[in-house]
Amino acid sequence: MKKKSILVLGAGRSSSAVITYLLNNAEKGNWHVTVGDFSVHSAEERIGTSKNGTAIRFNIEETQLCEQLIASSDIVISLLPADLHPKVARHCLAQGKHLFNASYVSDEMQSFDKEAKEKGLLFMNECGLDPGIDHMSAMEIIDRVKTKGGEILSFESFTGGLIAPETDVTNPWRYKFTWNPRNVVMAGHGTAKYLQESQYKFISYQQLFTRTTHLNIPGYGDFEGYANRDSLKYLDTYGLKGVKTMLRGTLRSEGFCSAWNILVQLGCTDDSYQMENVDTMTHRDFINSFLPYDDTKMVEGKLLSRFNLNESGPEMMKLKWSGLFDNDLVEIKKGTPAQVLEHILNKRWKLDPQDKDMVIMWHRFTYRLNQKTHEIQSYIIMLGDDAVNTAMAKGVGLPIAIATKLFLEGKINQRGVCIPVHKELYSPLLKEIKSLGIHVDEVERMLD
Amino acid sequence: MKKKSILVLGAGRSSSAVITYLLNNAEKGNWHVTVGDFSVHSAEERIGTSKNGTAIRFNIEETQLCEQLIASSDIVISLLPADLHPKVARHCLAQGKHLFNASYVSDEMQSFDKEAKEKGLLFMNECGLDPGIDHMSAMEIIDRVKTKGGEILSFESFTGGLIAPETDVTNPWRYKFTWNPRNVVMAGHGTAKYLQESQYKFISYQQLFTRTTHLNIPGYGDFEGYANRDSLKYLDTYGLKGVKTMLRGTLRSEGFCSAWNILVQLGCTDDSYQMENVDTMTHRDFINSFLPYDDTKMVEGKLLSRFNLNESGPEMMKLKWSGLFDNDLVEIKKGTPAQVLEHILNKRWKLDPQDKDMVIMWHRFTYRLNQKTHEIQSYIIMLGDDAVNTAMAKGVGLPIAIATKLFLEGKINQRGVCIPVHKELYSPLLKEIKSLGIHVDEVERMLD
Repeated sequence: MKKKSILVLGAGRSSSAVITYLLNNAEKGNWHVTVGDFSVHSAEERIGTSKNGTAIRFNIEETQLCEQLIASSDIVISLLPADLHPKVARHCLAQGKHLFNASYVSDEMQSFDKEAKEKGLLFMNECGLDPGIDHMSAMEIIDRVKTKGGEILSFESFTGGLIAPETDVTNPWRYKFTWNPRNVVMAGHGTAKYLQESQYKFISYQQLFTRTTHLNIPGYGDFEGYANRDSLKYLDTYGLKGVKTMLRGTLRSEGFCSAWNILVQLGCTDDSYQMENVDTMTHRDFINSFLPYDDTKMVEGKLLSRFNLNESGPEMMKLKWSGLFDNDLVEIKKGTPAQVLEHILNKRWKLDPQDKDMVIMWHRFTYRLNQKTHEIQSYIIMLGDDAVNTAMAKGVGLPIAIATKLFLEGKINQRGVCIPVHKELYSPLLKEIKSLGIHVDEVERMLD
Repeated sequence: MKKKSILVLGAGRSSSAVITYLLNNAEKGNWHVTVGDFSVHSAEERIGTSKNGTAIRFNIEETQLCEQLIASSDIVISLLPADLHPKVARHCLAQGKHLFNASYVSDEMQSFDKEAKEKGLLFMNECGLDPGIDHMSAMEIIDRVKTKGGEILSFESFTGGLIAPETDVTNPWRYKFTWNPRNVVMAGHGTAKYLQESQYKFISYQQLFTRTTHLNIPGYGDFEGYANRDSLKYLDTYGLKGVKTMLRGTLRSEGFCSAWNILVQLGCTDDSYQMENVDTMTHRDFINSFLPYDDTKMVEGKLLSRFNLNESGPEMMKLKWSGLFDNDLVEIKKGTPAQVLEHILNKRWKLDPQDKDMVIMWHRFTYRLNQKTHEIQSYIIMLGDDAVNTAMAKGVGLPIAIATKLFLEGKINQRGVCIPVHKELYSPLLKEIKSLGIHVDEVERMLD
């Protein structure tokens, strides 16, 4: 049988888990992996000594090169920035190739659905961690409850990337940057919308980090979640229309939000204007510029009285640990408050080579069955190996790699523009990620 | 001598004071006033029985009509919406006519400066209340201090439209809408920037209404001011470069800001998304949608505990007075939170026919002279006659009308794109508004 050819576009940091998995399974699956990147050196690093892989130079702007590469492959995995997926998708449509990626379905991507279906092509999107495993693990429970005749009343779900318990034990935030730092600083801008007991609820940015949901994960401790912008996005997709409560959000270690809220309240996460004198600004000056003038008080003292904080309390401890009161220069020439904050935080929040990260995903469902209310809490915990092979990279990469394998094995019958909410995909995929050491657990109990 | 012809474009509500003043002075000044409006009826109402005025139909979109009208006048006063001034300005340039308006100088307007100067034309802008009287009254003090050799250290200035002490005495906000309600609801969005003791200071929207400046106006009581977006805008124009403190803002009655802040914190002033179910929403539902779900508490109870409020305290009293907990339908079909809030507030905050409004402008300067620090506080207070002849309309209209008169009397030598910061204009103009019953006062004292 002729070898199948898989083309992976992009060899950046998040590609390691995808490519490693594909190479490890290439012999058995009878396939060959071609990795294309702007830097052929990066692609070569990912391939290593494997004889089942080829590294090549790739540039999305060179149309002829793209056409050639895609024409000679059977399936394309795009790890390029999300806004480039439609460009790849158009090549795939023209040449009749399947496409896998881990990004949200854009309107443009959605517009390819009809043509992809007509040509018998699968364009699988949102097949990473969040979005990705969240869809699959939620749908697994939703389908199971429905199959036994239950009616789902509520769905709450929080996912977050943290650091592992044994990493950086003095870090009171229990947090470092494991994905785009800018997105972390900007998180929550806008207004969060969700549904509770059939009431539409809205949380302003200024309230977001004070309206947290507490959750305990057996063996891992206490966490908190703040609402995502649009919790209702997948109401239809998940088949949950009519559900009374739906809340999706971001998970952090307990106490993170009340400290982060100080920075939000001060305006440190504002990205709408350039600050003055950034080139001569210290961390301490940065914080001071958001506080009232008062020559009888230190910066810390002004912060304490403004936000009713305790000098040795958890918020001040976290802000101090991050060096926000230090007299060090920020060391950038210009920037918005959000850009300056990102730069300051990155000095302490950057992963050290030996640091291990941790991803936690938590779902809580309630449902009615036989006149009783039941609750299911489900936990998925992933641990990173080091600062390169992070839980985040594995969480994003393994699903897309496993989905590709399942597809090549002929086990996926969906076609058109899809996301991973169908049993034929999530069932074997979830089983496999468990076998790869990802901790999945579930607790069910009766509420009345 | 041939009669001068003044063309007033726009006969909306804010035009009454301008047109009345011009008609009252037409005989003496030997001029004729033509008022053009989309509705010739509105223009006729403004002219009344005066034989020195003519009402005509006017439409900025009819180029030929505009050309004719402007060609046959000597000076044009544009009371049209601010974004139409450049269109009028282009006609004025083409036909060699002077132009007066009360709006901020746009970049487009500024670009006409060279050509206007070359043609000997005056394009006078920002010649109303705020901007307008604020420039003039500040420059009068700045020039005076500089003339006697003083060095200005600080400038703080707050202006606000309120209701008169005898109006609506049970209204705890001491506030009703006396200008565009939407702008009132949206006030303060963005970040306020000012200078204090040579430090750049920034106030986030979420902190704005808690960072107020207290001020007392002898005979009028206690007020508070919150910072405008850009306090530093006129640093150069006012000749205040090097000043240590510069803060400009909006004045409200004491206690307004802490109650308004509750609405800001809840997210009621958000204009970025459409709410759900607005057509069936009551005032009470509106507030509830921004509060956490809790079936053991009333809306009021949730608000009290969330913001640490006292049930009979000033914030709750104000929110209740505005009907925010009422079970009345909002009575609009759809809207953003800001649009819904505006609609609810307008039910109580609309001026009744007999209501009198009040405008207060307050400046505080400190300056060094002969090794001593001095302070000047200046107060300008305007009172409305009723809901039509408001202090707001007089404050905007009288300066533009008086400036026009002074110009026709040959007393203004400035040319090009100007704002009223020159002595030749502010000196006679301030004198005249005093004589028209506008209360202007000043207190000076030594600080050390």
